[in-house]
Parts: sequence; C-alpha cells; structure tokens
Amino acid sequence: MKIGVLGTGMVGTTLATRLVGLGHDVMLASRDGRSEAAANWLAEQAGGAATGSFAEAARHGEVIILAVRGDAALAAIAASGPDRLAGKVLLNISNPLDFSQGFPPRMIPELSNTTSLSEAVQAAAPAARVVNSLNTMNAALMVNPDALAGAHDVFVCGDDEAAKEVVAGLLGEFGWTAPVDLGPLRAARGTEGMMPVWLALFGRLGHANFNYRINIGAKP
Amino acid sequence: MKIGVLGTGMVGTTLATRLVGLGHDVMLASRDGRSEAAANWLAEQAGGAATGSFAEAARHGEVIILAVRGDAALAAIAASGPDRLAGKVLLNISNPLDFSQGFPPRMIPELSNTTSLSEAVQAAAPAARVVNSLNTMNAALMVNPDALAGAHDVFVCGDDEAAKEVVAGLLGEFGWTAPVDLGPLRAARGTEGMMPVWLALFGRLGHANFNYRINIGAKP
Repeated sequence: MKIGVLGTGMVGTTLATRLVGLGHDVMLASRDGRSEAAANWLAEQAGGAATGSFAEAARHGEVIILAVRGDAALAAIAASGPDRLAGKVLLNISNPLDFSQGFPPRMIPELSNTTSLSEAVQAAAPAARVVNSLNTMNAALMVNPDALAGAHDVFVCGDDEAAKEVVAGLLGEFGWTAPVDLGPLRAARGTEGMMPVWLALFGRLGHANFNYRINIGAKP
Repeated sequence: MKIGVLGTGMVGTTLATRLVGLGHDVMLASRDGRSEAAANWLAEQAGGAATGSFAEAARHGEVIILAVRGDAALAAIAASGPDRLAGKVLLNISNPLDFSQGFPPRMIPELSNTTSLSEAVQAAAPAARVVNSLNTMNAALMVNPDALAGAHDVFVCGDDEAAKEVVAGLLGEFGWTAPVDLGPLRAARGTEGMMPVWLALFGRLGHANFNYRINIGAKP
C-alpha cells in the first residue's frame, strides 16, 4: 500500500521503518521537505522509505499517517494541502500536548476537552477520512505489540467505518488482533486525554514499556 | 474507623454500605443534611450508616470521602467547613464532569488540564490531606474488585504519603491488592481525564462492568 508518513520524530521514523519492512511503499515527510540536509538525515532514518515534503507525501499515500508534535499538526495539514488528502485515510497519532511550560506537558486547551486534535485535523481536511489510533502508547509498542507480554490494547475511533477497517488492517499487520473500537472520532477526546496518566506512569517507572488494557467483564 | 461520606448518589451510598459492612463507623451526608425527608431517604440508602449534614460528617470522620457531582464538590467542601477537615484524610472520588451540555459530559474546563478537581479541593481545604483514588471505575467495582475477573487496577495519588497509606488500607479492605501509585496529587489531572474513554466504552458496551489495567513490562 502507498503510505505517506508526516513527521520524522520517534513515532514517524518507527512507523516508516516498520511499514517498509512489511513491504509497503512508504514516503516519510518532514517539514523541511527536500532540503539537502533534511534529505540526507531522513534517508538514514527512514529505513528504506522514500523521503519528501508534506505535500509530496500527501500526494504519494493512499493512507496518510500524521505523527508530528501536537502544536505542529494543523500546520502540517495545511502544508500537505487539504485537497490532496481528500478521500484518503488520514490516521492521526499526534496528541495535543503543549511542552512550552515544561514537563510533564499540559493538553493544548483549544484542542482538548470539548474537542480533540483529531477532530481539529478533520475540520482542517474536511474531505479526508480521519481515524485516530495508536496515540496512547510508546512508538516501539505501536508497531510491535508482542514486545510487551500479556494482554494490552490499542484504541481506534473515527466517523468513517471503511477507513477504520483500513487502519485495523494495518494494525493487524503490526500484530494487533482486536482493536478496541470507541466509536466516532469525538472519542479521540478520550484517547488523547489518556496522555497525562501515561506521562505520570512514565515518570514513575522510568521506562515506556507499558500500556493500557481494558478488562471487560460480562454484562451484570 | 470513623468515616464521613459526602454525597448520596450511587458512589456515596455504595461506599457507605460497604464500609458499614466492614465494621466502620460511617456517617453518610447529603446537602440537605438533617431535613426530615432527606433523613428518611438516607436511612434507607445508608446501609446502617448514620446520616447528617456535610458539616456533621466532616466533624465525624477521621477519613472524609468526597463523592458528589463535580460541579457540587467545592460547595460541599465549603459546607463541610475547611477547618473541620484540617489534618484529616480527604479522599476525593468526584470527577469534574459537566452534564449541562448533555451526554457524554465534558470536563469542566477550569477544573481540568492545567489543574484537577482534586487539586481544587486541596486548595479549598488547604490543611486537609487530599488523596485521589477510585474515580476511574463504576461504584460496584470500587468496593468489590473481585466482581470483575482478571487483573485490573485502581490508581492513587496525593501529596501526603501517610494519607495515601490510609487510603491504601481502605482499598485493601475492599479487596484491592496493589494500587498503582501515580505520585503527587497533580496526577489527578490524568485520572480525572480518563473519564471520557470510560464514558465512550460505557456507551459502546452498554454496561459498566469493565475497568482499566496497566500492563507493565520490564524496562527494555
């Protein structure tokens, strides 16, 4: 599948590398696009993915993965060109975290609670088919859930059922067997809001090899 | 132990009944206090607990449990009298949910993200020893974790280690073996922020017999 990955941090490069390994035709995109320095750095990070600008990756992919800092996500959509995203599956992994006040970050107020970054991304690219998933865990677990023994979960939400199926297919290739479907995209208010507990646990444990599990019993 | 329970909703009455069953000396308090109608209703709900006003329960308890609607929590502290809460363990279970815009509720903006209801309660009763716990699950599971098979977790956070120990003792009486300590009270921003995913799951599943589990692996 042709996949564009927007963002060259730990999440973007981990995903690009894994997707290349799975045989996908991946373009990894940075804000700097095709500047020579960026291209050289990217080529090393990309695990065999092609590299390009946000706009080029948006044109390249049937599926676009948004994995940038929360405060850069809407600019990344603007740079990608909302028209190029029309009809495409747009998987948002970015969280609306604000690191400007130090660690742990707070949520960006205007992108949380009564909305979410995922919903803001949908508003910025109205014809894209936005799905939110994978944003509640460390990058290493996103692409390799078996690295953590025992049951743990990935969430998925979105307003387009077929787009959720496409994302569930990619999750399956990573090793996820039964994503927890939270329903419409507005449920991203919840998944993005799970970051503060994740960050508190990260601070207490000193590592990121943990994840949420939803233990579901029988209806009483 | 002498325990005051503030709030006569599902959470308050479930806790009061369970604590009475465990042999504690419980007073369950409603906003209406000792009005005759309230007293009669409370006597039926309280599972053998004494009943009274917020102020009377605050005076009665060595441990005070706050289990009211989020938008009524600070008024309940004011009615209890912050002076009466001085030095006491104050367990906040209330979540800063705003139901005024319909279901699912949103978080009350001024009591979330850059603060939490638990921190606001601490600010309103500065000499109380505030602990946040139990607010991430259904009342039935709070007092009887064995009702859900398999592993699942309760969080605890607070700035007073001895107060957290007192709460951990009560959790142990309910059947919780190893609470997940998230550190200082500001971690309540995280636990209170887990409500939106809980509410999304509740909507999808049609019941509340589920809970969060934190699956923690070895440090890589």
